[in-house]
Amino acid sequence: MIDQNTICAISTSPGKGAVAMIRLSGNEAIPIAEKIFKPLKKGKTLKSEKSNTTHYGGIVDKNGNLIDDVIIALFHAPHSYTGENIIEITCHGSQFIQQSILQLLVNCGARLARPGEFTQRAFLNGKMDLSQAEAVADLIAASSKAAHTVALKQMKGGISDEIISLRKKLLDFTSLVELELDFGEEDVEFADRDALNKLISTILQLVTRLTDSFLYGNAIKNGIPVAIVGDTNVGKSTLLNLLLQEDRAIVSEIAGTTRDTIEDVMIIDGIQFRFIDTAGIRATTDTIESIGIKRAYKKIEQADIVLVMLDASVQLNETIKFMTYLSGHLTDKFAAIVINKIDIADKKTLNELTELGNSTGFPTLLISAGKQRNIDELNQFLVSSAHKFQGSDSDVVLTNLRHYEAFLKAREALLRIRDGLQNNISGDFLSQDIRECLHYLGEITGEISTDEVLGNIFKNFCIGK
Amino acid sequence: MIDQNTICAISTSPGKGAVAMIRLSGNEAIPIAEKIFKPLKKGKTLKSEKSNTTHYGGIVDKNGNLIDDVIIALFHAPHSYTGENIIEITCHGSQFIQQSILQLLVNCGARLARPGEFTQRAFLNGKMDLSQAEAVADLIAASSKAAHTVALKQMKGGISDEIISLRKKLLDFTSLVELELDFGEEDVEFADRDALNKLISTILQLVTRLTDSFLYGNAIKNGIPVAIVGDTNVGKSTLLNLLLQEDRAIVSEIAGTTRDTIEDVMIIDGIQFRFIDTAGIRATTDTIESIGIKRAYKKIEQADIVLVMLDASVQLNETIKFMTYLSGHLTDKFAAIVINKIDIADKKTLNELTELGNSTGFPTLLISAGKQRNIDELNQFLVSSAHKFQGSDSDVVLTNLRHYEAFLKAREALLRIRDGLQNNISGDFLSQDIRECLHYLGEITGEISTDEVLGNIFKNFCIGK
Repeated sequence: MIDQNTICAISTSPGKGAVAMIRLSGNEAIPIAEKIFKPLKKGKTLKSEKSNTTHYGGIVDKNGNLIDDVIIALFHAPHSYTGENIIEITCHGSQFIQQSILQLLVNCGARLARPGEFTQRAFLNGKMDLSQAEAVADLIAASSKAAHTVALKQMKGGISDEIISLRKKLLDFTSLVELELDFGEEDVEFADRDALNKLISTILQLVTRLTDSFLYGNAIKNGIPVAIVGDTNVGKSTLLNLLLQEDRAIVSEIAGTTRDTIEDVMIIDGIQFRFIDTAGIRATTDTIESIGIKRAYKKIEQADIVLVMLDASVQLNETIKFMTYLSGHLTDKFAAIVINKIDIADKKTLNELTELGNSTGFPTLLISAGKQRNIDELNQFLVSSAHKFQGSDSDVVLTNLRHYEAFLKAREALLRIRDGLQNNISGDFLSQDIRECLHYLGEITGEISTDEVLGNIFKNFCIGK
Repeated sequence: MIDQNTICAISTSPGKGAVAMIRLSGNEAIPIAEKIFKPLKKGKTLKSEKSNTTHYGGIVDKNGNLIDDVIIALFHAPHSYTGENIIEITCHGSQFIQQSILQLLVNCGARLARPGEFTQRAFLNGKMDLSQAEAVADLIAASSKAAHTVALKQMKGGISDEIISLRKKLLDFTSLVELELDFGEEDVEFADRDALNKLISTILQLVTRLTDSFLYGNAIKNGIPVAIVGDTNVGKSTLLNLLLQEDRAIVSEIAGTTRDTIEDVMIIDGIQFRFIDTAGIRATTDTIESIGIKRAYKKIEQADIVLVMLDASVQLNETIKFMTYLSGHLTDKFAAIVINKIDIADKKTLNELTELGNSTGFPTLLISAGKQRNIDELNQFLVSSAHKFQGSDSDVVLTNLRHYEAFLKAREALLRIRDGLQNNISGDFLSQDIRECLHYLGEITGEISTDEVLGNIFKNFCIGK
């Protein structure tokens, strides 16, 4: 499945830096590097050097002109990232030098690597399974601690080991069930139905836990969606600006690398929150079905956390109407009633609003976005909601849509197997369902894969990885 | 002069990449790395490993949580870039990981490196002289082949060796001249005046050649300034767009890394050209001192290469007037008369214009910017002018303003010494001039340097180099 070409790419971030690294992998990596590398020590050859050593020298073109002084690191197959021979060239970080060296490598017989091709080779050479390979891209893209932790766990084999082991057990059962079929009418039973039932329950439990975790996993990866709903005058944008500014430095650092706009993302305590559609809504019309309210509902639907913002300085009637409209749409959400402008509200209104807030059963927070009062409490609410949403911290979390879909399909097959066992279904139907389950579990770890699936996975990688 | 801190920095280009490299240099580099590195092989320690080896393992925080899988490269003093112990950590290229590892290193006792501090230490530890250190920054900034070649030559010791050797010889003479002074009235002469005179001539020759080369060196570094002068209707912008578009891909690649705007820079045959003030001028007023003409003169003054563009489809009277205004301002320039719109001109006018062009003594090029005719010839003119301007290709070229100014001052002192020798000046005056010359030559290579000078030089480096 692996073509025999030696591939090369710039593996460090594009642009100018102090240094840059160009990676070369394949059978011909060492001979190709040898053609353009002039070691400091005369007579030294890369070929005769040990694995895991570094070598100082010059990169020269075919006319012997020096291009740069570099350090070459040498990794022998199979003890390398790809499992092939790898040469890493660390050069000065000018783009001219990077491009020149890449050009020389291509002239000497290497081919430019496709996105993710190094990792793809690592997978094909058995250095990691498919879900681990996918985690490499997630790890590089992770911009918050939570997303990083989830990706790292997956890269270190998080779900793979368990899936592979359970799948193997299931495979043993299929063999036995299929052996029974060979005996046709003899009505033998090699596969212990009780033991199989138990195994199916174990796998179902794992698969259900994992598919359940996807909602959180996806939120972790892309930011937990938070909706701030409220009338246009309640101080929503003041609050949002305040929240965002506090972490602006962190957010700015990842600008352009994770998303096109940075305005509505912030990281608190290592968790990324994403504010969805922060445009104001007006709830002052009399019809419940007004556009404003419809928009509020839609925002709430998309969110996992909802901040219902009330203005402590306005007439209570409007506020109560607004709350009436919203109530019933907040079930299954982590919501809080945020009463703003407490610095300019009269005490009576404040008390009444607090009572109204408490009556919803959701926590009520009294803040002043303008005077920056009690903002910490609000942050705490966001973080603790995220933690509750997450469940146990040590659990492996599903973040990958492809895995999620495969697990959903495996789950369907598992449910059919369970029902079949209860109804003493015939061996050939049972075998078919088990085969289907094996297929979907195998797709996740890559024990079963097609060129098309691999192509789709690796095309989203960055070049050089 | 070197503080004893161990310094760290991200050395690869900022941003997300497949991998990134963090560099650590100083006495404590290995013990600090040891604190956060968990090698794959248990019991292995970096301390006991050989120089120029690489090691696979995990970076862990103080609670033992894994941050990333990395490769560590180890370089023992003095055989490293800085001359100190160096640890290079190659991690996955997420910004979260890069920042986390940097934070861990700081927590374990390293300090964030200042811009150019690794190279500054390399200089202070005698790994390179000051002009070589400065060339490192130029090498990283170089975006054209010519600028790269010049920087690389300087980094490999281009001017240093000769300067250092000549300076040493001059130093010997000073000692002898100053010894003469000790003998006061005795009128002895230890320093051979003829030999000294010969040495001064040799140094003067070198210094003059180098200061002469600065004009070209500076142009190579920042792009050779080209002015296109001509009436607004002659097709200047059409030509410029045409020239720029041809190399737009190359130019775009270096956008943002070398200059804020890319519109007016292009690279032909590895040489960078910079088009200065390409706004149109009008030469249709009757007074020679019109604003348009003044602006044309100014543009010509700033340029090394001048393209005088004429429109073959307009009345000859205006053209002749324009040429009259310009002539006499093109001496010392590489100029060409570019006659545009040859596709729509009548033959008679074309002949007359060609004659007019030829009468200037500059090459006359007949082109059509609109129809893209004879543009190659124009490119060839630019490249060959650049080569003529450059002089011999093998010569070392001065690109650094600081070196240029020091050489100019050294040259003044050398001229005084030469005059002094001719006039049998007294030893104490001679000694003073020689000392001054020694000082300026020493400043270039860094044999003489102050913290202020060093500070000014390295503050313009990128961090991590």
